[in-house]
Amino acid sequence: MNNNIDNREAVYYDGERDSMVILDQTLLPNEVKWLTLTSAEEVWEAIKVLRVRGAPVIGVAAAIGAYVSAKQIKAERFEDFSAEFGKVCAYLNSSRPTAVNLSWALNSLQLPVNNLQLTGNDWREYALKAILAAALEIYRGAIADSEKIGEYGLSLTKPGDGILTHCNAGRLACMGIGTATAPIYAGHKRGYGFKVYADETRPLLQGARLTAYELYSAGVDVTLLCDNMAASLMKSGKINAVFVGADRVAANGDTANKIGTLGVAVLAKLFGVPFYVCAPYSTIDAKTKTGADIVIEQREPSEVSEMWYKKPMTADGVKIYNPAFDVTDAELITAFVTEKGIVKPPYKFS
Amino acid sequence: MNNNIDNREAVYYDGERDSMVILDQTLLPNEVKWLTLTSAEEVWEAIKVLRVRGAPVIGVAAAIGAYVSAKQIKAERFEDFSAEFGKVCAYLNSSRPTAVNLSWALNSLQLPVNNLQLTGNDWREYALKAILAAALEIYRGAIADSEKIGEYGLSLTKPGDGILTHCNAGRLACMGIGTATAPIYAGHKRGYGFKVYADETRPLLQGARLTAYELYSAGVDVTLLCDNMAASLMKSGKINAVFVGADRVAANGDTANKIGTLGVAVLAKLFGVPFYVCAPYSTIDAKTKTGADIVIEQREPSEVSEMWYKKPMTADGVKIYNPAFDVTDAELITAFVTEKGIVKPPYKFS
Repeated sequence: MNNNIDNREAVYYDGERDSMVILDQTLLPNEVKWLTLTSAEEVWEAIKVLRVRGAPVIGVAAAIGAYVSAKQIKAERFEDFSAEFGKVCAYLNSSRPTAVNLSWALNSLQLPVNNLQLTGNDWREYALKAILAAALEIYRGAIADSEKIGEYGLSLTKPGDGILTHCNAGRLACMGIGTATAPIYAGHKRGYGFKVYADETRPLLQGARLTAYELYSAGVDVTLLCDNMAASLMKSGKINAVFVGADRVAANGDTANKIGTLGVAVLAKLFGVPFYVCAPYSTIDAKTKTGADIVIEQREPSEVSEMWYKKPMTADGVKIYNPAFDVTDAELITAFVTEKGIVKPPYKFS
Repeated sequence: MNNNIDNREAVYYDGERDSMVILDQTLLPNEVKWLTLTSAEEVWEAIKVLRVRGAPVIGVAAAIGAYVSAKQIKAERFEDFSAEFGKVCAYLNSSRPTAVNLSWALNSLQLPVNNLQLTGNDWREYALKAILAAALEIYRGAIADSEKIGEYGLSLTKPGDGILTHCNAGRLACMGIGTATAPIYAGHKRGYGFKVYADETRPLLQGARLTAYELYSAGVDVTLLCDNMAASLMKSGKINAVFVGADRVAANGDTANKIGTLGVAVLAKLFGVPFYVCAPYSTIDAKTKTGADIVIEQREPSEVSEMWYKKPMTADGVKIYNPAFDVTDAELITAFVTEKGIVKPPYKFS
């Protein structure tokens, strides 16, 4: 395997061809394939099946996707166009329920259209220009936010730190240098020598396929582990900080993120490791009071019960952490159930 | 797939053929294949690559395996046989380092031989009989222990309970009705209507391939989940008790078990769920003072980086829990890192 991703963003607007281009992330790390999307249906499908994924990238994809979809709208008058564009945005918004960036981006796109009163013959050109400008603002904003998050996050670390991350909140998910990975890339640029550990993140293995892959491609010292190995790793004292991304942050700080994030946070608390959520403000949904109000997407059973393919799951050369066992501290064990009866603490076997 | 396992034990002595038979668990759930083992090398390999696995089954396999290996020993005198048998046991003991049952079983096998003083012409027959008797005692003892563990464990539950287990400490691992699964089978027999949840247990997926498979085959209501989903499940309040097995228990109660067990225990503590370790006394190693003294086996990176096969990973019909996200409580988050700066608790986004 020698499929290094180039420096293009995971989703971008191709000005020369007036089109939308995405990297098909479902094929990584075994194949690097760029797709040109031209219709609302294609954009919806790409978000739904995770060809583009990660809250910020979904926002950008929805924005540029709304623009290319708008180009397809057949309408004689601006009012009809505007109404149709609203439907397109509602349709795109239905592709995934949890990431707030999706609806945030689509709402941002509709604002300029809703605010326009176009009656001249050139209304279509004006409207499309306004939509594209709004989409590109979201695109550029995501990249700029990523750089800033990197600098703030870096201030929470020191050279040589061990850093654990879950899923992929990297450049493939978040534009620029990512969100959870932003402090890592920022530190790497300055020779901080971080030891980074990436949870593989079942069932879709974004940590193995994407995070380990993109960090390894960038020359970062990265080790891949199964999700259930994070406890053993933290107990060993090798982790100084956890950085994760977010799909939606409620007003009280409760944070929806990739399945498994909660478990990492619980471990970090018990082992005394700081747990940082890296996210642009657009991920904060102040209208959602607490986590209990966040809709959690339930996905297909086959993602768990059937593996995908007999191919490498990460880049060649990525280090692997693979202990067969871990040790559970006696204080965490309520009782032992043995053939001689139930044994309760304090334990003193002889 | 319609490969139900029959009622045979995962490893047993076939008296008619004076041989050792095992179920090749690496092929489950897609193929049910029984193997006859006749040499120390075959037994060592079967333990090493997990054709037989699970602490009690490893102990039984080592015991019966030592017997069939002893039959191959070429020696003129009992003293030479005895010395050679010691070497065979040491060799078998080197197959896996963590499970104490392995060395416990092999030590038990050597005792009768070491205590014998055989000089007659029939020394070989006597010695082999003594070894076989000791091996069958371990075999029968494991089954009897399993039944007792089931009864004691059942006393810690109530009908309708949600029960989480990790890896496979089922009948495939532990003889009889297993250890961690023993309370489940005991309750199932009495119509307790447990809702059982099985962690898939990466990287080798014993939970998906073996636990979900054997419980489903037995008619138990079982749902499979990825390891990183246990936090979300426990937070939802659906789990009343955790039952896991053990590979080695130190004198202070620290317990080595399949990687990921520690994480489940940490979750159970935070969410207030009792966490029970089910194990026969032979798993307790009083000579090991604490968990820090337990040798943890490090396994091949390819187990993590390369998936096995494009086949179903569990039995048809097993229910799947597959939420895409979970919600991390604000109190578990040290700080948010945003493009506008670092936000510390208390969080009040508006």
